Amino acid sequence: MSIDLNCDLGESFGFFQKGNDENILPYVTSANIACGFHAGDPATMRKTVTLAMKHDVSIGAHPGFQDLLGFGRREINMSSEDVYDLMVYQIGALEAIARTEGAQLNHVKPHGALYNMAAKDRSLAEAIAKAVYKLNKDYILYGLAGSELIKAGQNIGLKTANEVFADRTYQMDGSLTPRSQKNSLIKDVDQAVQQVLNMIQNKKVRTVQGELIDIQADTICIHGDKEESFLFAKRITEALKNKQIEKRNLRVD
Amino acid sequence: MSIDLNCDLGESFGFFQKGNDENILPYVTSANIACGFHAGDPATMRKTVTLAMKHDVSIGAHPGFQDLLGFGRREINMSSEDVYDLMVYQIGALEAIARTEGAQLNHVKPHGALYNMAAKDRSLAEAIAKAVYKLNKDYILYGLAGSELIKAGQNIGLKTANEVFADRTYQMDGSLTPRSQKNSLIKDVDQAVQQVLNMIQNKKVRTVQGELIDIQADTICIHGDKEESFLFAKRITEALKNKQIEKRNLRVD
Amino acid sequence: MSIDLNCDLGESFGFFQKGNDENILPYVTSANIACGFHAGDPATMRKTVTLAMKHDVSIGAHPGFQDLLGFGRREINMSSEDVYDLMVYQIGALEAIARTEGAQLNHVKPHGALYNMAAKDRSLAEAIAKAVYKLNKDYILYGLAGSELIKAGQNIGLKTANEVFADRTYQMDGSLTPRSQKNSLIKDVDQAVQQVLNMIQNKKVRTVQGELIDIQADTICIHGDKEESFLFAKRITEALKNKQIEKRNLRVD
Amino acid sequence: MSIDLNCDLGESFGFFQKGNDENILPYVTSANIACGFHAGDPATMRKTVTLAMKHDVSIGAHPGFQDLLGFGRREINMSSEDVYDLMVYQIGALEAIARTEGAQLNHVKPHGALYNMAAKDRSLAEAIAKAVYKLNKDYILYGLAGSELIKAGQNIGLKTANEVFADRTYQMDGSLTPRSQKNSLIKDVDQAVQQVLNMIQNKKVRTVQGELIDIQADTICIHGDKEESFLFAKRITEALKNKQIEKRNLRVD
Repeated sequence: MSIDLNCDLGESFGFFQKGNDENILPYVTSANIACGFHAGDPATMRKTVTLAMKHDVSIGAHPGFQDLLGFGRREINMSSEDVYDLMVYQIGALEAIARTEGAQLNHVKPHGALYNMAAKDRSLAEAIAKAVYKLNKDYILYGLAGSELIKAGQNIGLKTANEVFADRTYQMDGSLTPRSQKNSLIKDVDQAVQQVLNMIQNKKVRTVQGELIDIQADTICIHGDKEESFLFAKRITEALKNKQIEKRNLRVD
Repeated sequence: MSIDLNCDLGESFGFFQKGNDENILPYVTSANIACGFHAGDPATMRKTVTLAMKHDVSIGAHPGFQDLLGFGRREINMSSEDVYDLMVYQIGALEAIARTEGAQLNHVKPHGALYNMAAKDRSLAEAIAKAVYKLNKDYILYGLAGSELIKAGQNIGLKTANEVFADRTYQMDGSLTPRSQKNSLIKDVDQAVQQVLNMIQNKKVRTVQGELIDIQADTICIHGDKEESFLFAKRITEALKNKQIEKRNLRVD
Repeated sequence: MSIDLNCDLGESFGFFQKGNDENILPYVTSANIACGFHAGDPATMRKTVTLAMKHDVSIGAHPGFQDLLGFGRREINMSSEDVYDLMVYQIGALEAIARTEGAQLNHVKPHGALYNMAAKDRSLAEAIAKAVYKLNKDYILYGLAGSELIKAGQNIGLKTANEVFADRTYQMDGSLTPRSQKNSLIKDVDQAVQQVLNMIQNKKVRTVQGELIDIQADTICIHGDKEESFLFAKRITEALKNKQIEKRNLRVD
Repeated sequence: MSIDLNCDLGESFGFFQKGNDENILPYVTSANIACGFHAGDPATMRKTVTLAMKHDVSIGAHPGFQDLLGFGRREINMSSEDVYDLMVYQIGALEAIARTEGAQLNHVKPHGALYNMAAKDRSLAEAIAKAVYKLNKDYILYGLAGSELIKAGQNIGLKTANEVFADRTYQMDGSLTPRSQKNSLIKDVDQAVQQVLNMIQNKKVRTVQGELIDIQADTICIHGDKEESFLFAKRITEALKNKQIEKRNLRVD
């Protein structure tokens, strides 16, 4: 039994420093690297690629809306065609940077509002899946477990990674409780670890309504931007070790 | 005897239309496509790639400074390392768009202030040449004829294209007369045609000082943004035909 | 009987030219000047202010979403607080430019997606009205006739201008037929002129459903970006003259 | 005897946090607030204005080049006319935000590369001085002590503030030793305090060449972005107190 741990990295922009990439990398197996539209810049992208290589972590593209001020977290009403182009452009930029450093991309995970919108909007999900597929059939598409994005990836013939969250609560339909609601976050680390193990071992998660629902967990999202993030990462890592669940990326062999 | 005719294309940005790409494409053999930093956007890039393919014209990247307001024509004092990253990012984005359309890049030509600075600044020229070389050893590097950029390209092992201008006057050192000077432009179409033929057939150009100097002409820059541009393009094309000089791109066979 | 005719101006961006400001200015009494976020830049704003002054046309701010690529026409999911700040910033920038040229602002009209969202979203409408009111109680707030934005302006104590359109069709609730629908545009100039006169003289407009509904027309939006726009502007101007309806801005005396 | 202490503030951008504004404000008498082009955004500007008001600190505009990635520290080759417009736009935006919060601007200090270029380039200096003067004759223009910017301000009739640095070394012509040179920074806090006192009390500074030259010190630049900055601020404050030199802004009474 194995699981992938992924983290969003390379979110600085020029002189604006963000995140603690060096510190979180030892805990994860896959790195999602910002591609310059919501965060990241060409120099930061290159630096992050080399850092991920140093830690032998899989490199993936983390493209988002072109909204630096809003950090890609604000919904922008774009056409599916424009989203397709936005994906290809950003992934291509990171591919080139990786190539000049001797690395290859492994996966793609949309960022922020684009990720959330693609979880529910089939047309957007299909545009994203198509962009990834046309660039490289071997790229793994990361998306919210059981979402439209995962379905679109499977339909077009991509390998997909159902992403789950340690510190977020779930609704009956498998969606995350919106951050605007009080009980959206799990702040207790033991509860978070329990949720993770339940998702991996039993393929179940308990919703805020108290019911157990099915969930597929291929990769767990780990945060690296706050102090408490490291405690979560550390405790999850320990729990996985105790249960003999191997941390392993989803690299295509 | 043959010559390449190149033109800067895809310089629109969203709803801001610029240039007459459809009209100039029949005259040229190579298209330099803006990559989103000084002009162009993902959708415009894709549209321009397909348009160039339709006209069987070679596709090249035309990366510039990240300065949409100044259209990449203002010098920005960037480090060579940052210029290297800026090149890789933009070329990679266009590579990906071309790939999804079934096309490949043929060449790279820096834009505007970056082109002019790289003609004189060896460190900048080397950073640009290195970026192109690391991405693809087969890419042809376009630069001002006899400039530092051409030398840097040759030194690193790239095939280069010495670019000459039909409508610009030359100085004794082979540099272009700055636009700020009165006699920088050739407005008489006969004089422009004569200059082109002299450069191709005799490898010479007459400077504003009246002397003939040596010049290597691998590709001629054709403009497509003004009405009179088309007259120049038409007349140059006719003159080449009369002299049995073939228009041919520099595609590596 | 009098009516204001307004037009969106100053929509160029650096080397990207857009619109025919010189040509449309003789037809209008109020100019809405882009403030640099969706279009316009500091130099264009100054040039447009002086142009409007030359034609003795009222100057207003035309702030929009920070989305140059989408020309401010894409909905962005911003908080009301952020919209308030976005308004104050852009209006302030134009105020300063006008002041250095000896001019004053007369009105504010949100642009594109911001205009449309504020027509329906009370919270957004209130944020916009508050920003205008805090900057200058004498500014006139332009909004879609009868919309939430007009109501928010009136509630806070601003003078408002109900805007109507000559070339757009209306729904039963007074909203415009979305551009995505076939019958959204009136292409017949006689029909457009008739709609304008009916709105001014009888305070009525016939909806696409065939019913006459009440409408308040304080200002008519005139476009200046296309060739046919000038025909519409000319014909509307003639019709107003024939009916002895004076073209007059809404300047506060 | 009195002196103004100023600090650059409001340099965050959206989710990208920068600086420790709350911590440095107790030490200074004037705040230079970034205006959105090299740092800062509308919401950050408003927050910073209210923070400065809370600490009863003078508010000034800190406009820079439109270069978020380079943090306004890269030279951009703009025309004087464009610099004039860039100044008016940014100052106007901050003026409006301040006005809605019941505050007024006191001064203007160009940022980064613009500050350095204006210290030496008369044409640029005059464009900046003219922009400030046209906006408000009572604004105080901050510039490098004895620089072209100070002269341009005086020539047009502005009150000026000669700015000096505690932690930078000086050349024989009164310019700062470029950061690219080894001895550009003073890292010893005692030496920095000594330099400050010498400049205020004796109007002299010892250059790296060992000579004492004349210098006018109206305001001292205090940094707030690093941990050691606070030690410098603290020690300078103590020294001023010991010497009975009052910390006082340059507000026009």
